Amino acid sequence: MNPSVKASVPVIRRLPKYYRYLRALKDANITSISSRELAAQMGTTASQVRQDFNCIGDVNGRQGIGYSVDNLLAILEGLLFGDGERLTAILFGCGRLGTAVSSFIANNNNGFRLIAAFDVKPELIGQTISGIPIRHLDDLNAFCDKHHPQVAVLCLPRSGAEEISGRLVNLGIRGYWNFSHYDLSVPFPDAVVENVHLGDSLMSLGYRLRNGD
Amino acid sequence: MNPSVKASVPVIRRLPKYYRYLRALKDANITSISSRELAAQMGTTASQVRQDFNCIGDVNGRQGIGYSVDNLLAILEGLLFGDGERLTAILFGCGRLGTAVSSFIANNNNGFRLIAAFDVKPELIGQTISGIPIRHLDDLNAFCDKHHPQVAVLCLPRSGAEEISGRLVNLGIRGYWNFSHYDLSVPFPDAVVENVHLGDSLMSLGYRLRNGD
Repeated sequence: MNPSVKASVPVIRRLPKYYRYLRALKDANITSISSRELAAQMGTTASQVRQDFNCIGDVNGRQGIGYSVDNLLAILEGLLFGDGERLTAILFGCGRLGTAVSSFIANNNNGFRLIAAFDVKPELIGQTISGIPIRHLDDLNAFCDKHHPQVAVLCLPRSGAEEISGRLVNLGIRGYWNFSHYDLSVPFPDAVVENVHLGDSLMSLGYRLRNGD
Repeated sequence: MNPSVKASVPVIRRLPKYYRYLRALKDANITSISSRELAAQMGTTASQVRQDFNCIGDVNGRQGIGYSVDNLLAILEGLLFGDGERLTAILFGCGRLGTAVSSFIANNNNGFRLIAAFDVKPELIGQTISGIPIRHLDDLNAFCDKHHPQVAVLCLPRSGAEEISGRLVNLGIRGYWNFSHYDLSVPFPDAVVENVHLGDSLMSLGYRLRNGD
């Protein structure tokens, strides 16, 4: 990170996209790219790309040659994945959505490691989800005291998420990957929350199709 | 829709959130709400709420009483769900993510109806996913000629999505709920695309936790 510049949340949200595009360029053995070419591929502007790169560090774009793909990737990997130590996550809700999300975390190299899963349904307890045993919610405090997980993944209905979030904040969990419709960042402004609202995305799509976007 | 005002994409993206909050208010038997109260619950500002409502129609906020919850809900339902006729969708990719997404569409009342699912893995063909038979991709053209689906749900790897998207556009499919890492809105600017990039969301969360958001 360029020490003089603090990346804003919109810039932070674009970093994974740059990372994906640059990985694809590297896989295609492309070693350098101009801001204009990268912008065209990503559907943005060269000026936006240059501004964003200016926020993230010493990217060394060179006139007529462009940016080094390897250098950009190294900077982005440092920002997105830190020292390579994965963040520990625990899952709440082991239904169909929880199963898919746990599998996504287990099969992807996005810097997270799922270390436990919790539910309250008796028939699920002791089963496994993406190779991890499902525990009863009663075991949560003991588990957190011992393992200090950093992230909670909420695949619960709204009411379940509302009920549990205060408890999770009190247990010292800072990060939330939230699939529920409960916006816990409103009551807990210090929590770091990424919301994935699948229903909202689908409703927006419906609106745009029905209203001639 | 207020005929003199065209809602921008950021406003459109907020409509489902208003809808969710107003549904919760109605479920709690609350009949009217001020922009200030609604903004506080949603983590936004009263001015933003009033501006957004001004875009969507004749919302009739009254000084000292506030907005009618029923009236707002009726307007939002008209915008988000049209005449109640659900949009027809077909799924591509019947792995774990496709299974979860199909179940989400089947179990939610977001205005979509899944009418087919496609894959290429021989062992999946003829099985069902959320009650719908899985067809081979070879049957796609015949199916579309007969049923004219409006939306494609892409739960494919990047390469699969890149391969198929031109074909889907040519088959007349306008809407895309895209879970793949292929940004089809760049080559196909007329397609209506909602991207859900789970990996990007997770990487943003990681960045914010590692870099002291």
